[in-house]
Amino acid sequence: MKSAAPVKIGIVGLGRLGKRHAANLRYQVPGGQLAAACSIAPEELSWAEEELGITELYSDYDEMLNKADLDAVFLVTSSAMHAAQAIKALDRGLHVFTEKPMGVNVDECRQVEQAAARNGEKVFFVGFVRRYDPSYAYAKKLIEEEVIGEPFMVRSQTVDLDEYADFQVEFVPASGGIFLDMNVHDIDLARWFLGSEVKTVYARGGSYVHKAFEDVNDADNTVVLAGFEDGKMAVISASRTAFHGHDTHTEISGSRGILKIGMTPAKNRVEVFDAYGARQDCVKDFFERFSEGFLNEAREFVNCIREGRKPGVSANDGTKATEVGFAMTDSFRQGKEISI
Amino acid sequence: MKSAAPVKIGIVGLGRLGKRHAANLRYQVPGGQLAAACSIAPEELSWAEEELGITELYSDYDEMLNKADLDAVFLVTSSAMHAAQAIKALDRGLHVFTEKPMGVNVDECRQVEQAAARNGEKVFFVGFVRRYDPSYAYAKKLIEEEVIGEPFMVRSQTVDLDEYADFQVEFVPASGGIFLDMNVHDIDLARWFLGSEVKTVYARGGSYVHKAFEDVNDADNTVVLAGFEDGKMAVISASRTAFHGHDTHTEISGSRGILKIGMTPAKNRVEVFDAYGARQDCVKDFFERFSEGFLNEAREFVNCIREGRKPGVSANDGTKATEVGFAMTDSFRQGKEISI
Amino acid sequence: MKSAAPVKIGIVGLGRLGKRHAANLRYQVPGGQLAAACSIAPEELSWAEEELGITELYSDYDEMLNKADLDAVFLVTSSAMHAAQAIKALDRGLHVFTEKPMGVNVDECRQVEQAAARNGEKVFFVGFVRRYDPSYAYAKKLIEEEVIGEPFMVRSQTVDLDEYADFQVEFVPASGGIFLDMNVHDIDLARWFLGSEVKTVYARGGSYVHKAFEDVNDADNTVVLAGFEDGKMAVISASRTAFHGHDTHTEISGSRGILKIGMTPAKNRVEVFDAYGARQDCVKDFFERFSEGFLNEAREFVNCIREGRKPGVSANDGTKATEVGFAMTDSFRQGKEISI
Amino acid sequence: MKSAAPVKIGIVGLGRLGKRHAANLRYQVPGGQLAAACSIAPEELSWAEEELGITELYSDYDEMLNKADLDAVFLVTSSAMHAAQAIKALDRGLHVFTEKPMGVNVDECRQVEQAAARNGEKVFFVGFVRRYDPSYAYAKKLIEEEVIGEPFMVRSQTVDLDEYADFQVEFVPASGGIFLDMNVHDIDLARWFLGSEVKTVYARGGSYVHKAFEDVNDADNTVVLAGFEDGKMAVISASRTAFHGHDTHTEISGSRGILKIGMTPAKNRVEVFDAYGARQDCVKDFFERFSEGFLNEAREFVNCIREGRKPGVSANDGTKATEVGFAMTDSFRQGKEISI
Repeated sequence: MKSAAPVKIGIVGLGRLGKRHAANLRYQVPGGQLAAACSIAPEELSWAEEELGITELYSDYDEMLNKADLDAVFLVTSSAMHAAQAIKALDRGLHVFTEKPMGVNVDECRQVEQAAARNGEKVFFVGFVRRYDPSYAYAKKLIEEEVIGEPFMVRSQTVDLDEYADFQVEFVPASGGIFLDMNVHDIDLARWFLGSEVKTVYARGGSYVHKAFEDVNDADNTVVLAGFEDGKMAVISASRTAFHGHDTHTEISGSRGILKIGMTPAKNRVEVFDAYGARQDCVKDFFERFSEGFLNEAREFVNCIREGRKPGVSANDGTKATEVGFAMTDSFRQGKEISI
Repeated sequence: MKSAAPVKIGIVGLGRLGKRHAANLRYQVPGGQLAAACSIAPEELSWAEEELGITELYSDYDEMLNKADLDAVFLVTSSAMHAAQAIKALDRGLHVFTEKPMGVNVDECRQVEQAAARNGEKVFFVGFVRRYDPSYAYAKKLIEEEVIGEPFMVRSQTVDLDEYADFQVEFVPASGGIFLDMNVHDIDLARWFLGSEVKTVYARGGSYVHKAFEDVNDADNTVVLAGFEDGKMAVISASRTAFHGHDTHTEISGSRGILKIGMTPAKNRVEVFDAYGARQDCVKDFFERFSEGFLNEAREFVNCIREGRKPGVSANDGTKATEVGFAMTDSFRQGKEISI
Repeated sequence: MKSAAPVKIGIVGLGRLGKRHAANLRYQVPGGQLAAACSIAPEELSWAEEELGITELYSDYDEMLNKADLDAVFLVTSSAMHAAQAIKALDRGLHVFTEKPMGVNVDECRQVEQAAARNGEKVFFVGFVRRYDPSYAYAKKLIEEEVIGEPFMVRSQTVDLDEYADFQVEFVPASGGIFLDMNVHDIDLARWFLGSEVKTVYARGGSYVHKAFEDVNDADNTVVLAGFEDGKMAVISASRTAFHGHDTHTEISGSRGILKIGMTPAKNRVEVFDAYGARQDCVKDFFERFSEGFLNEAREFVNCIREGRKPGVSANDGTKATEVGFAMTDSFRQGKEISI
Repeated sequence: MKSAAPVKIGIVGLGRLGKRHAANLRYQVPGGQLAAACSIAPEELSWAEEELGITELYSDYDEMLNKADLDAVFLVTSSAMHAAQAIKALDRGLHVFTEKPMGVNVDECRQVEQAAARNGEKVFFVGFVRRYDPSYAYAKKLIEEEVIGEPFMVRSQTVDLDEYADFQVEFVPASGGIFLDMNVHDIDLARWFLGSEVKTVYARGGSYVHKAFEDVNDADNTVVLAGFEDGKMAVISASRTAFHGHDTHTEISGSRGILKIGMTPAKNRVEVFDAYGARQDCVKDFFERFSEGFLNEAREFVNCIREGRKPGVSANDGTKATEVGFAMTDSFRQGKEISI
């Protein structure tokens, strides 16, 4: 198996995260071969050529699909393009990895789901990177080993540094707002750890630090209380206003114990004891926090292809996370509980 | 001031917490003098005589008020008796410390508030012990020093060991249920840290571990999302099913930083590194966690009396906490948002 | 027992630590009665009168012994006076608590030991306060429960804030230097936890931050490697140059696990997450760190008297700690291993 | 630069660590190409062929040097072979990476140093992996930024799980004992962080848990107090008897603060709160702890070759660490301070 022909992959989109994925695919994913790169930005293609030695370069997605000899595409484009690009590739018989969100609305997601279903022999992989982070994966393993008994509540948050808030304000129309942009991973984690589906959401929040979010009908800090099908529940929150670092953490309560993942977002194992107290520097952003996860998910994508396996994360997971994200947004904007 | 006559105090109720308060008043509260003890349980009076050397002992509250030479009463009776006993003592010109809750319904609380108002020269003190815990008090000081800017969100929880759950089931009718019994302190903390009043509450929960709570229309794990007057918010949760210890912790988010209080409920400064990992034993119950707070609040009560000061916590704080606790209960039972 | 006559105590020395002990004895030690106070500083006696209401005041130790009706003395005078005052009180039939060190040289210590021996019915108590700190006491309990098997190595340090260094330089001639002044508690802890006696010491150190210590043949940071009778060992270190706080911590290695006590000297349970990272403020000095220990040791002293018990810490413990402290000093000054 | 021809590397030795390095070089080191593998164990060569797809396989080192088209060798053989193999490769014009120790005695090390010197245009790299661990590298950066002022003391330890002790007993004759086998990295770190050379060492230790070590003139727990040229110092310890995990940690004291690296050897970011307390699982061995370091050092080796740079770690660093390790062993066995 390991000595089989490599999986030829075309990466699409070479922004900051695209570059990360491209470098991983080029150098660190056994069995994978970065065969082509596609971007509408000429300087990004130059980067791919100079830094990664990729010679098959495209500025047009369709042209890449037509000309390049590929087994799979890796979509790291803007959110609005994910669904159409994924469907097109699936229907041409390619394996597809797409960054989240799978689509910018539920209809798009369902169309992707259908495309994945009618090409069921192809691997379709949504980039819910946290599932592939070593700590989150370890927590899942402990749950499967019943260390905490039966899980009934998840509390999960995504928190970004305040210094990115100005950029995020401009990004709201494209991103769909704080719930869709920041909590999609938390929704996915809650479903994954609880093994159940969201029935109701009730959201609150405000623009406590940056009033500009209010002007675009969004918020800088939010909390959602979600009810699940079997009475389980989740508290999902987001913040754009942290000063210490990117602070993604998750807590799972079970009938015999509690797991907490990442409560202090320490940058590394160094502690400083000085005039500011006993302290730890924190990770700056999700790139830093989930660098291993990004690598692990790419490896798992390639391994699934080579071993003919389905990934643990499905197209339906992508639809569900988007569906719940929209319900949260509705609840926040309408000021009431929303049923799904 | 310090050499003035001591404040003569009669303690009422000598259960587990009453004994703790009595011993504190007897030995550790400068300026206070435990002058009398009242209990309907003869063995509790014997304890007071033998262990504390108290000779003025009463089995009837009215008799104590009539006969004993007192400046103040310290009420540690069952919740249903707090309001009537407090009003009676206030109206006889005594200073009053009452354990929470101030009353078992909002009407009772308002009557106490009125009694406190018409005896405005007397010190009336509700035992919101967490405000007097060194860590909570330190957090308040940091907030006043604007270390975290403007606070806009509080997350606070009260969590008890699972081994007490069977006892708690029987106690539900008297205690009013999980929200009134366990979250009154969290509500008070949220109001205190945010400087704002609760407008709406939305509760969820379930009997995930002990089905017996469901039978009495209660729960063993709950979460409430509360909206405050100026758009601030709080997440308040409770659990009766912990295995590691009593885990009361609180987080305050502000515009420039976050404070967390007691995230790991360590029993002390000892860590054990053995076959179970790197670990800390945890506090067993609120007695252990708040032993300093119980002492500090008794001292503050006596100091207020001796210095003619009003305590930081008012009768209205007691009413508000009860009012919100009832709204939470309503929200949980009716399955919808409740406005206050 | 509890209702027996109180133990009448005369405190001697009312500096910073003396005031702390006096207030504890006055208000917080059941069964103890602060009956008299002695100080050569008139303002300290005024403090005792005004703050504690003590009326029996002496400026002369002998006069107090002659006139006051006492069961015990509590010596918090300068180190050079401990031995003579302790011997005099013991030989007059009083129970004695003395702050460490028991004497400023080994001969003095042995004389105190003999006085304690010939007055064997009296309680003699050396203030090795760390043994009475809740965390250190808990560690001892875990060791007795064999949680870590057989202990074979102790690592213990005493670390003070750099801001006190200038004061400490002047204090070196009286204190005997860094080993005697700062490590006496660590030596006592190592003996206590290992149940064995020091045979050899090998010291290193330097004046890395404050050259003034070198001028008085002392150091600002030191480490000692000590060998014990049965091959066990200890690493004992001291620093006068911390910027984060008073950082006393201790680690005990055993055949089945390791205990660590106080690795982060957190001021309380509050964590701050802000632009400086994830951090905790630290305790400022040993007063803050060991406030409970100071209280617990005074209570244990009184309980020993009332119950006719011997304290866990003996006069010989005081001699041994001093003896080892001198050997450490010799080793540092001579640059070689010293046998005891 | 990045698009230049890859560095062709032959790995020598495919035991557990050799396999790790081989897989890193095969899949994760940009610019490197695992061109050949050499092992005396046929099953290891089969592994290289099947798992890594390496077809140029040798059972004889000289044959590989003669026949294979290589730019560099990567030596992961047994310690006794490092020096001779390194010298031979250097003198044939190859770049050399060698695992520690550089040689099994100081003479061997000096011969390697000379070979490196006479082939000065070649990259010679000793695998002091901790320097390439992200946390240790971050600490070095903070020191260079003068966050803790001038460093004057290092405390560093290497601690292994007790379950490996039986294997380690047998390994003592080949490894040279606990100081050479376990503390070589700590010695290197102390020199690196302090920027100074060891002058004296004083060692203590014993076979506290496994008496078998005593029989081979070795120990299962040791501590060394080392003096450096400018009066700086280090405390270096080792243990073979931990039950919680591989616990390598290091502390650096400076004139304005202290850095601690890895004080709790947490396996990941997961905390478990259950009947055993609040706890973290720990890393099992140095493979798990330093997996990133092993990768980073291989990348740095290749980058040095491609960029014509000298690595931060030199042949002389290898000699010095071995020299100090022998002095520690002598001190332990002779029971006295040893000067270097």
